[in-house]
Amino acid sequence: MGGDALSPPINIPPPAPHATNGEHTMKNEPKIAATATPIAVIDRAAFSAAVEKIKLVTVTRDIIPILANVKLAAEAGDLVLTGTDISMDIRIRVPGEVDSRFSTTVPVSLLASMCSKSPKSDRIVMSLPAAQEDNTGDNASEAASARFEFGKAVFWLQTISPTDFPEAKTFKAKPHRFALPGSTLWNAFDAVKAAISTEETRYYLNGVYFHLASDATYRYDDDAEGGKSLFLRATATDGHRLYSQTMSAAKGSLKMPGVIIPSKAVNVLHKLLKGKFAPRQVDIKMDEELFVIGWDNVQIATKLVDGEFPDYGRVMPTGNDKVATLDAKDLNDTLQAVTVIASERGRAVKAVFEGGKCTLSVNNPDTGAASSDLGCDYEGERIEIGFNADYLTSMIANACPAGGDIVFQMASASDPILIRGEENGWLGVLMPMRV
Amino acid sequence: MGGDALSPPINIPPPAPHATNGEHTMKNEPKIAATATPIAVIDRAAFSAAVEKIKLVTVTRDIIPILANVKLAAEAGDLVLTGTDISMDIRIRVPGEVDSRFSTTVPVSLLASMCSKSPKSDRIVMSLPAAQEDNTGDNASEAASARFEFGKAVFWLQTISPTDFPEAKTFKAKPHRFALPGSTLWNAFDAVKAAISTEETRYYLNGVYFHLASDATYRYDDDAEGGKSLFLRATATDGHRLYSQTMSAAKGSLKMPGVIIPSKAVNVLHKLLKGKFAPRQVDIKMDEELFVIGWDNVQIATKLVDGEFPDYGRVMPTGNDKVATLDAKDLNDTLQAVTVIASERGRAVKAVFEGGKCTLSVNNPDTGAASSDLGCDYEGERIEIGFNADYLTSMIANACPAGGDIVFQMASASDPILIRGEENGWLGVLMPMRV
Repeated sequence: MGGDALSPPINIPPPAPHATNGEHTMKNEPKIAATATPIAVIDRAAFSAAVEKIKLVTVTRDIIPILANVKLAAEAGDLVLTGTDISMDIRIRVPGEVDSRFSTTVPVSLLASMCSKSPKSDRIVMSLPAAQEDNTGDNASEAASARFEFGKAVFWLQTISPTDFPEAKTFKAKPHRFALPGSTLWNAFDAVKAAISTEETRYYLNGVYFHLASDATYRYDDDAEGGKSLFLRATATDGHRLYSQTMSAAKGSLKMPGVIIPSKAVNVLHKLLKGKFAPRQVDIKMDEELFVIGWDNVQIATKLVDGEFPDYGRVMPTGNDKVATLDAKDLNDTLQAVTVIASERGRAVKAVFEGGKCTLSVNNPDTGAASSDLGCDYEGERIEIGFNADYLTSMIANACPAGGDIVFQMASASDPILIRGEENGWLGVLMPMRV
Repeated sequence: MGGDALSPPINIPPPAPHATNGEHTMKNEPKIAATATPIAVIDRAAFSAAVEKIKLVTVTRDIIPILANVKLAAEAGDLVLTGTDISMDIRIRVPGEVDSRFSTTVPVSLLASMCSKSPKSDRIVMSLPAAQEDNTGDNASEAASARFEFGKAVFWLQTISPTDFPEAKTFKAKPHRFALPGSTLWNAFDAVKAAISTEETRYYLNGVYFHLASDATYRYDDDAEGGKSLFLRATATDGHRLYSQTMSAAKGSLKMPGVIIPSKAVNVLHKLLKGKFAPRQVDIKMDEELFVIGWDNVQIATKLVDGEFPDYGRVMPTGNDKVATLDAKDLNDTLQAVTVIASERGRAVKAVFEGGKCTLSVNNPDTGAASSDLGCDYEGERIEIGFNADYLTSMIANACPAGGDIVFQMASASDPILIRGEENGWLGVLMPMRV
């Protein structure tokens, strides 16, 4: 029992001198005397929910420390929380009783832990040292600490001056404006995000292409002429596969430019538009450089990828006449079984379609081989096609999220395959592997 | 859409020639002709459960490849699965219809994936190439593959000859024998394993000391004389804290030597003695070098740590007269709140006990400070003690797994603290930190 020699001694200071005195600034009250402590009293549940959302955008371990902080600032008696990673801002308004001088920034991850781990309380009382205003911009203010009272637990957090916080992004001219159901936009991102490229050299593929299209889906039969209606479409590709999701165009979107929403913004919106956060409608403002989306008390602004998305329509297969229909769950189960044998790299699986049957097989020189077959509605000539098993798994999940029939439209062992499923408006293209 | 150039082409072989012909060897039948394929037919659920257990012991990425394999061998018409990491063997018998010549080894992780991912089937049909027996010990046998049929899915796995499999461990002389309820041994490991040292230089602390003791728990009052009864005790320490769990001694254990059960064996047994695997009774055979434990169809043999566990009785505090009683849940909640501020390294928390109150506080020069208090039954003079927050969290969980009162018996800010809780027979010792 040698004690804990590795841990440095710690030194607890006396409580900070700016404890609250129970007098809070009330909404619409005249600004209180400049010598008093700026105080904010906030509903804990609303504040906690806002902090969790802000955390999705902020970044720790960046060379700019303030990007790990949330800005807490008074705005007409409410508290506005702002987070940014420079490319993307998130701004949430939480009602409260907030002194008009209240403005500071503190680490958002600590604030989130304090919200989740402190003893239960209905509200949070925050206060800033009275002197902070005078020190703004001065080095002395960097050591200033903000006080947070969560029921019996009291915290003092080091702050960074809000004057160092990056400015909010704005439009240069009047943007396009339209509204979409939150679930529609969530579904579009959900349906295509798995195909976003992570290759940084092809930065123009590192996002979702959000654009207008004049036909609901690409045709594979020759007699299609295409409708005249306009649709909105989300498309993503990494060069090996392409996922697209078509949805109805909204009033106001019909002149929008095609834009590439960056991967991080797609992921943040995918989290926020689903589940307990799901808004019924989102309001979109956009031009070619900036995409701003808002609902309830939340507003997110993201820069768009400055590049051109490939004209994927030109490489879409149109004459694939070998059409096989399989049960998605059966196909997925069989695929997961035979790929047990596949190695981590190069998870290739061979599919043979012939006479009402599809046989999947895998051969791995290091471990062994596997084979299994399943029923398949296919009457054409025998065709052998190699798939990347991970891509195929993802295709099945996106084409048929709830099971049902999946349709493969093939031409040969080396041509792109069109894939459709039960998901309305969804279309996938997959490059085969050589096997 | 450039195809998947990174993935190498794969080459699927025709099915291996040793497909089953439906004729299986039945129990107690005379040995079938030597030219036929050795076949085993096994209940899938029992086999799958056995494979999951074997997997806990085997090791991948070792310089000895066969340690990643499970040995599958006939024994009196059943199939015996064996896994080993050299230090530790696990052996499980599964009833079946197994050709007496059936013996091979295949990678256990592939087998586990095959069991969990193949289409549902009640049984598994395994077969070995007829030639394998002749090739035993020959290089040619290394390329031999075993065939596994899980319903419609068929796999061929590369094998390593069973003659290369490490020999089972045995006792040199007659071992001590006794039995314990499975839950008692599980509870003993569960109560102390968190304090096992991972420092390899102090290898004699890398396990649980399983030994006889003559008093139920260490006393902290001076008038204790100690009972004359013998108890079994599990003890673990990492030099900063010590956990011990006392249990009734079993008939047959009263002359057992004190032994150190290595950390890995403790973890494997902790998994296997709980939950759906929990046996009512375990049979133990042991000497100073080997510990063998068996139940139902499972047998595990582990080498013991060859070293001497410190005589911890000599450093146990006996005169700690400052006794504080706290509510374990309240203490834990307060601790988790204030340590939000603590850094990853050196999560130190200061506790001040005084006048019916305990105040926990943390000071982190990098982030800020936190403070909260809770009710405490303590009437002695004011005492300040520093704790490692992670150790204290673990102490609370082990002393009071279901909540209740936790008792701290302290002497000073630098002497070891005795900690007891609601867990019967459990005792902890914790070194304070300097704060």
